[in-house]
Amino acid sequence: MDDSTLSTASNTSLQNETTTDTAPQGRGATGTMARDRAPAHGQVTTGPIEGSRKTVSHPPGRADITVPFREIDLDPSANEPPVRVYDTSGPYTIAGYHADVARGLPDLRKPWLSGRGFRQVTEKRAVKPEDNGYASESQAVPHCPAPHEVLDGDAAPLVTQYEFARAGIITEEMIFVAHRENLGRSAMVEGAEARRADGEDFGAEIPAFITPEFVRSEIAAGRAIIPANINHPELEPMIIGRNFLVKINANIGNSAVTSSAAEEVEKLVWSIRWGADTVMDLSTGRNIHNIRDWILRNAPVPIGTVPLYQALEKVGGIAEKLTWEIYRDTLIEQAEQGVDYFTIHAGVRLAHVPLTASRTTGIVSRGGSIMAAWCLAHHRENFLYEHFEDICDIMRRYDISFSLGDGLRPGSIADANDAAQFAELETLGELARVAWSKGCQVMIEGPGHVPMHKIRVNMTKQLKECGEAPFYTLGPLTTDIAPGYDHITSGIGAAMIGWYGCAMLCYVTPKEHLGLPDRSDVKVGVITYKIAAHAADLAKGHPAAQIRDDAISRARFEFRWQDQFNLALDPDTARSYHDETLPKEAHKTAHFCSMCGPKFCSMKISHDIRKNAEREEGMARMKTSFRDKGGKVYIEAEDIERV
Amino acid sequence: MDDSTLSTASNTSLQNETTTDTAPQGRGATGTMARDRAPAHGQVTTGPIEGSRKTVSHPPGRADITVPFREIDLDPSANEPPVRVYDTSGPYTIAGYHADVARGLPDLRKPWLSGRGFRQVTEKRAVKPEDNGYASESQAVPHCPAPHEVLDGDAAPLVTQYEFARAGIITEEMIFVAHRENLGRSAMVEGAEARRADGEDFGAEIPAFITPEFVRSEIAAGRAIIPANINHPELEPMIIGRNFLVKINANIGNSAVTSSAAEEVEKLVWSIRWGADTVMDLSTGRNIHNIRDWILRNAPVPIGTVPLYQALEKVGGIAEKLTWEIYRDTLIEQAEQGVDYFTIHAGVRLAHVPLTASRTTGIVSRGGSIMAAWCLAHHRENFLYEHFEDICDIMRRYDISFSLGDGLRPGSIADANDAAQFAELETLGELARVAWSKGCQVMIEGPGHVPMHKIRVNMTKQLKECGEAPFYTLGPLTTDIAPGYDHITSGIGAAMIGWYGCAMLCYVTPKEHLGLPDRSDVKVGVITYKIAAHAADLAKGHPAAQIRDDAISRARFEFRWQDQFNLALDPDTARSYHDETLPKEAHKTAHFCSMCGPKFCSMKISHDIRKNAEREEGMARMKTSFRDKGGKVYIEAEDIERV
Repeated sequence: MDDSTLSTASNTSLQNETTTDTAPQGRGATGTMARDRAPAHGQVTTGPIEGSRKTVSHPPGRADITVPFREIDLDPSANEPPVRVYDTSGPYTIAGYHADVARGLPDLRKPWLSGRGFRQVTEKRAVKPEDNGYASESQAVPHCPAPHEVLDGDAAPLVTQYEFARAGIITEEMIFVAHRENLGRSAMVEGAEARRADGEDFGAEIPAFITPEFVRSEIAAGRAIIPANINHPELEPMIIGRNFLVKINANIGNSAVTSSAAEEVEKLVWSIRWGADTVMDLSTGRNIHNIRDWILRNAPVPIGTVPLYQALEKVGGIAEKLTWEIYRDTLIEQAEQGVDYFTIHAGVRLAHVPLTASRTTGIVSRGGSIMAAWCLAHHRENFLYEHFEDICDIMRRYDISFSLGDGLRPGSIADANDAAQFAELETLGELARVAWSKGCQVMIEGPGHVPMHKIRVNMTKQLKECGEAPFYTLGPLTTDIAPGYDHITSGIGAAMIGWYGCAMLCYVTPKEHLGLPDRSDVKVGVITYKIAAHAADLAKGHPAAQIRDDAISRARFEFRWQDQFNLALDPDTARSYHDETLPKEAHKTAHFCSMCGPKFCSMKISHDIRKNAEREEGMARMKTSFRDKGGKVYIEAEDIERV
Repeated sequence: MDDSTLSTASNTSLQNETTTDTAPQGRGATGTMARDRAPAHGQVTTGPIEGSRKTVSHPPGRADITVPFREIDLDPSANEPPVRVYDTSGPYTIAGYHADVARGLPDLRKPWLSGRGFRQVTEKRAVKPEDNGYASESQAVPHCPAPHEVLDGDAAPLVTQYEFARAGIITEEMIFVAHRENLGRSAMVEGAEARRADGEDFGAEIPAFITPEFVRSEIAAGRAIIPANINHPELEPMIIGRNFLVKINANIGNSAVTSSAAEEVEKLVWSIRWGADTVMDLSTGRNIHNIRDWILRNAPVPIGTVPLYQALEKVGGIAEKLTWEIYRDTLIEQAEQGVDYFTIHAGVRLAHVPLTASRTTGIVSRGGSIMAAWCLAHHRENFLYEHFEDICDIMRRYDISFSLGDGLRPGSIADANDAAQFAELETLGELARVAWSKGCQVMIEGPGHVPMHKIRVNMTKQLKECGEAPFYTLGPLTTDIAPGYDHITSGIGAAMIGWYGCAMLCYVTPKEHLGLPDRSDVKVGVITYKIAAHAADLAKGHPAAQIRDDAISRARFEFRWQDQFNLALDPDTARSYHDETLPKEAHKTAHFCSMCGPKFCSMKISHDIRKNAEREEGMARMKTSFRDKGGKVYIEAEDIERV
């Protein structure tokens, strides 16, 4: 019902755009090329994903909450409704949308936040030269002019989604994500129960239909988080938890020489275009404060950072010079900007460091090695561990979610599941409980490099040690021997741990271990992880996951080539690969493919078989004639033993 | 010991070459480009894989048996022996090797075969016009001039490796593969027992060291096969079975317009260069008899075909016109050429066809749909099923291994593990027993499209129904929604089913469902499947699998960049990716990487930690100073609870 209310007023610019939007026609390889080419100077990539139409939907009775989706219209011959898919791309994919990165995105959450008694900060923390790595005028990326008022929840009784959930209050963010996870449906997906029963969920409890109350209860239990800094009003909320769709994160970072702020924003826009649910800004060096401002003001997805990286910059890259004061000030700096989650390496305890001495690859986490170096230099306990409650107090004020960093994750198959890794995991569980007691949202970071047979125990132990807090893993890579293809070595491990219960998968690009990813590496990394996450949703028996697989399979069987391209995770690549062999437009409606060619086609024979099977009397005749030979024509499904 | 006998006389041209061969230096991106560019007209790709040296080794006491390997020399600073890897590339990767495709490869197996009492066929089957699709002179690929005498085992008491194994006789092929599986070692791999214990093998029984007797016993039990037609003397034998290294297959096919025979041979050479253990020639249309001759005479790996494809060509592509006589003649034709294994679609029974009528994607196997069409047209049982014993008699005479085709494999997630698929699998088990009773070697083909949670049952049921005959699967693809990336959707499933016990994985390229793979698609497909197979070997606890991972991990930790590139599955790509970010030669010896840069490096800190840990008294001081604070410095491995 609510899907038809496209003319209803809305607080986002989505509405008018989408109503005038129409389903684009396939533009073949040209479209592809145009898409993958970098945008003009000062611009970011905009326009619909090939074959898709941006749409919006409102939760029942909440026309004030506008949830974005993507719809793929199918060929009329299919007689099927459009296939609606989860969409992370923000307004950038609205047809005709003009992106003005200096103005930023609309304040989607502003009306929701205004009623929560947050204090407007009149004296923001002043930007210091060290925040931008002492960038000189010539090197400087300008300050982002997009308006941004800073809120502080210090005086409010309830600030975080966790606190609201515990108080039994359903927030607009919870309503938004519930509707989003249901792909905008207001009732149960057809066949949902059957699909759930068909999967193996390893103890996850994905309902056939997601209600706001279910979202609240999952957050209250600590099993899910909605990373949403109260200073990031541009955010389209999303949820991370094992009882929801598996999510993926893409990492971006600043270039040594930045030609424009738009160039940095484009990395974000490009990542979310292909499906990144969250983006981590791992920039180092100069201009990172200003670049972060540009990114946040233009980000419809949660932005995560590793504050330790910037703190290290402020002390000239010398780990032992780090102090709690500098770190604390960096947290406030990024909190006011609106960062949604922080990776905090508080689990790297002095006592764990010696456990890494005998490793094949030592400590490979940058944050982990920074803190290990600090601990050794001072022969003291990790100051992040000792100040953990102070960190909680800060993060609670802005509802910044914890991503407890696995600083001691294994960097090789040889070091997987070792004493150092598991000692830290146990500490992360201890810290998660402290964070909850302080009202904060928490997720836990995981490995790394792990052979297939050692992946499951990582998930089992994490659930046990960390009270089911969402797990967020890097890969894991299932072998060390394929540099240049680590999106694949890790995509295998990511799909498996996602199936076992991991809530979010941090992507790995083909350049892992070798260099810095370029535009095409980022796209390949994101698509590979969308594959892993979706394969996991299917295996868990997510009630809505198979809808898209079934739609594309029917399109294949019926030779609806355009539908097959448009339903693909990457329509541009699918179309261009097809065109390499059969370029003619006519071939996109042909009832054959390049594998068998026009003379013979297996799909065609299947259609004959179907027609044949439908001819009852024909089947009867077969039956008799064959029975005469003592055979058995029909084998009922029940006859087939399933192991 | 035997590895040093490089000067011993040998019946292959490997020897002299390898002794004069030296470890090449990294040639950076230039080398890469050169490697990936297609060879000149009439040529095939030759020369060592970047950073590798071809070598040979003889089984203890058998200087007459020469087993090829590849060795990767490490930087002197590593103080490590060269890393020896399994090599499928044949003589083409010997430094300075001149490939003459008109002359073909040396007859490696000739002396072994001569003693087995096979009849030399004086009157070979004459090549008929239809064998080459009635190619006119202008279209014709010339006859391959390489000498080829045809043997027939009809009069011999023992012909197949299975028959020899059952008779308790160890053949040269068995000795060859045992030595090959041990990577040329004549004693147990160090730490092998520990690695085996560390893995999860799902009931496989991989010994710490492979003996020829073990190979014989596995073949006798039907758990493994050595596809080796007695008319393919150029073959370097390899073994397929769950208790050996997981193997991969690459498919090739002729181009519509073939400019030269070498162009078709190059597809084979390119596939095995990157690690294809077997190659299937799925050519159709014109010239396929002659092209097959060129491929076989130049193939050091087993060649598989689907005889049904050529038989269909002979009846103008009309399935119902197929007859047993035409099919039988095609088997003889290909048997005399030396094809090592045939895909036989005898499991598609008339009774199974109606089970596919309600499928989402019907029958997607080309062979399966051809036979289904035939069954329906004649309302008769599959003639391959009815003539199965006759087929066995033919294949036994040449020791052609069966690859029992899964003509009813699912083509979509929706159809996975359905009644049709499992009904056929049960029939394949029945046929496997018949084939064994006739003295033939057998493997079983498997799916297809299967979500992760339904993969395991495919393996379990196959082992149960087919008496542990080796399983040979296509993927499986774990989702349908990523055309353009199906090497990845299937690589995930392939790694998992390989771990569960699948013996050989048929590769899938990025062009699957869309078009015909080009040179780079083939390479990406092969490397992806090498990753899947290796990840499976690691997870199964294969005693030798982790050696290469450990070597590359040490190289990473010690900043031996050239070693890291050279140890990679694809050294050219690894090197070129690194050079994109840090092109200077100097950076390949730099003690930092592009991720953290020179100012800060996590690996460097790990080295400091190691030094620190080694300073006993330093550690003691830490201990005391920290104990004073009531802390605990050391956590012993035993203290860490493992789930």
